[in-house]
Amino acid sequence: MRKIVIGVMGAGATATSMDLANAYELGKLIAQHNWVLLTGGRKAGVMDAANRGAKSVGGLTVGILPSKDTEGISAAVDIAIPTDLGNARNNINVLASDVVIACGMGLGTASEVALALKNGKQVILLTENQQSIAFFRGLAPAKVLIAEHPQQAIALTAEIVSIK
Amino acid sequence: MRKIVIGVMGAGATATSMDLANAYELGKLIAQHNWVLLTGGRKAGVMDAANRGAKSVGGLTVGILPSKDTEGISAAVDIAIPTDLGNARNNINVLASDVVIACGMGLGTASEVALALKNGKQVILLTENQQSIAFFRGLAPAKVLIAEHPQQAIALTAEIVSIK
Amino acid sequence: MRKIVIGVMGAGATATSMDLANAYELGKLIAQHNWVLLTGGRKAGVMDAANRGAKSVGGLTVGILPSKDTEGISAAVDIAIPTDLGNARNNINVLASDVVIACGMGLGTASEVALALKNGKQVILLTENQQSIAFFRGLAPAKVLIAEHPQQAIALTAEIVSIK
Amino acid sequence: MRKIVIGVMGAGATATSMDLANAYELGKLIAQHNWVLLTGGRKAGVMDAANRGAKSVGGLTVGILPSKDTEGISAAVDIAIPTDLGNARNNINVLASDVVIACGMGLGTASEVALALKNGKQVILLTENQQSIAFFRGLAPAKVLIAEHPQQAIALTAEIVSIK
Repeated sequence: MRKIVIGVMGAGATATSMDLANAYELGKLIAQHNWVLLTGGRKAGVMDAANRGAKSVGGLTVGILPSKDTEGISAAVDIAIPTDLGNARNNINVLASDVVIACGMGLGTASEVALALKNGKQVILLTENQQSIAFFRGLAPAKVLIAEHPQQAIALTAEIVSIK
Repeated sequence: MRKIVIGVMGAGATATSMDLANAYELGKLIAQHNWVLLTGGRKAGVMDAANRGAKSVGGLTVGILPSKDTEGISAAVDIAIPTDLGNARNNINVLASDVVIACGMGLGTASEVALALKNGKQVILLTENQQSIAFFRGLAPAKVLIAEHPQQAIALTAEIVSIK
Repeated sequence: MRKIVIGVMGAGATATSMDLANAYELGKLIAQHNWVLLTGGRKAGVMDAANRGAKSVGGLTVGILPSKDTEGISAAVDIAIPTDLGNARNNINVLASDVVIACGMGLGTASEVALALKNGKQVILLTENQQSIAFFRGLAPAKVLIAEHPQQAIALTAEIVSIK
Repeated sequence: MRKIVIGVMGAGATATSMDLANAYELGKLIAQHNWVLLTGGRKAGVMDAANRGAKSVGGLTVGILPSKDTEGISAAVDIAIPTDLGNARNNINVLASDVVIACGMGLGTASEVALALKNGKQVILLTENQQSIAFFRGLAPAKVLIAEHPQQAIALTAEIVSIK
């Protein structure tokens, strides 16, 4: 009965408008595939946009919060998991995701990509940050996939999920 | 949109047959109230029984696993959150629950009751272990409630949830 | 080269004057045995008293802090380990201790005693809280030892350490 | 009384011979400055080499282990902190270090660099991996320092420590 969970990771306050548009679309597409959306849960940036996208089509959303309660949570999160772990919760974000999509790039996202790869997960990078692509591909060539737009990220996700 | 999450905590391999019957009934009643059931997620004891009870009436179930993957998960968990935190995940179990119900008593459950109370949560004890009742009531008289059967535990839960 | 680490667990602000006197004495005796003292590290209650006791005779002290930095740390901690884990750091407190001594009793301490026993550690209770003695002895009779004063707690510790 | 703690992060089994030589030298220099050396604690790669370097001149060493006990620990660790947190312990590695030195580069190290920078720490990169330098400098230009050999890394560390 276990549902497939897709994690969308990305910046909070520093997300670009491109990141936000991509995150919203990713959330929507994830929900339309009947997958559960998992994010860091905060009412900011990529997290909030992805959750709103998923809810716009009736999806189910899980937020793994760094805080000890639900203060600052995105209103579009259905199931709140406050962890009180600070940034250590980033490791849970990736362990709980069948596939990890990095939407944009920042320090928190970089830690999640590294932790996901370290844990043997496949990661899809949807970012204009070419240095991150060069860096992570250098470290884990077989596990890093590149997408140029949300639809491509979701097509890659569907492929990974189908062979699991 | 946030859903109400009720945590049912209890022993794995050492659960009594009374604990298992109570856990199944708790899971069922939680689902019938349209609350989300949260447990430690393993295919053992109270965790497994509560999840099966919830699924028997179509509920939604979340499992916060101590392991890094879903090996050993209850087949009745919908949303798996592997944490790789070992027993430190017990703190997440209680932080992510609007109300914590301890079904039976053991060392892991005792840590969860203590952590829940430490975090200011109300805890409902459904147990024949009179020493645990005396002990926890002594430490946090205003936060510890006693139930004699699953229906009473759920009635107390409904009351707490209604005034939150 | 690994040094023996003895954990002293106890309340912060709610510690009694008896707890504080016992903690100071425990810290001192631990240092005199050339063991490392480990506590929760905060400048409060049992943690601070034990650290001051250890430093009064030139011991070495480690503080496992719940916070992300060293704000609020006891001035008598030599090695600060900020964890940003909140109460989840309680599990590290006990895993990193060769023997756990509970000095007094409270909710945080109760979680540490339960987690230590769950992890198979021996625990020495130095407390007037008879309900805690009855409760934990009921759950793990072979692993719970009772001390009536700091010297006895240290004698029991020395015995456990010698046969490890 | 708090001692200065310098963290050396780097790969286990995949460390290069250059990484190992650098780590040994870093450990030695850290100990000679009377700083405490902190690593991930395992008997492998950069962790083990740095600890051996520090002990070769009588330093004090702390190991923050991912495991629940001390199995697999470097024999040159004085104070073992088993965490049972898996890779989530990487966040503690950096929080507990006054300065973080990345010796070589890999997935675990990348997560530690990202988490250190996310937590506002300065990081010194001692690596031939030019892509990592370009990537992390792009994300946090003011916080990333580059060293070409261990002596330079330690000179930079001394500077940071002196103005804290």
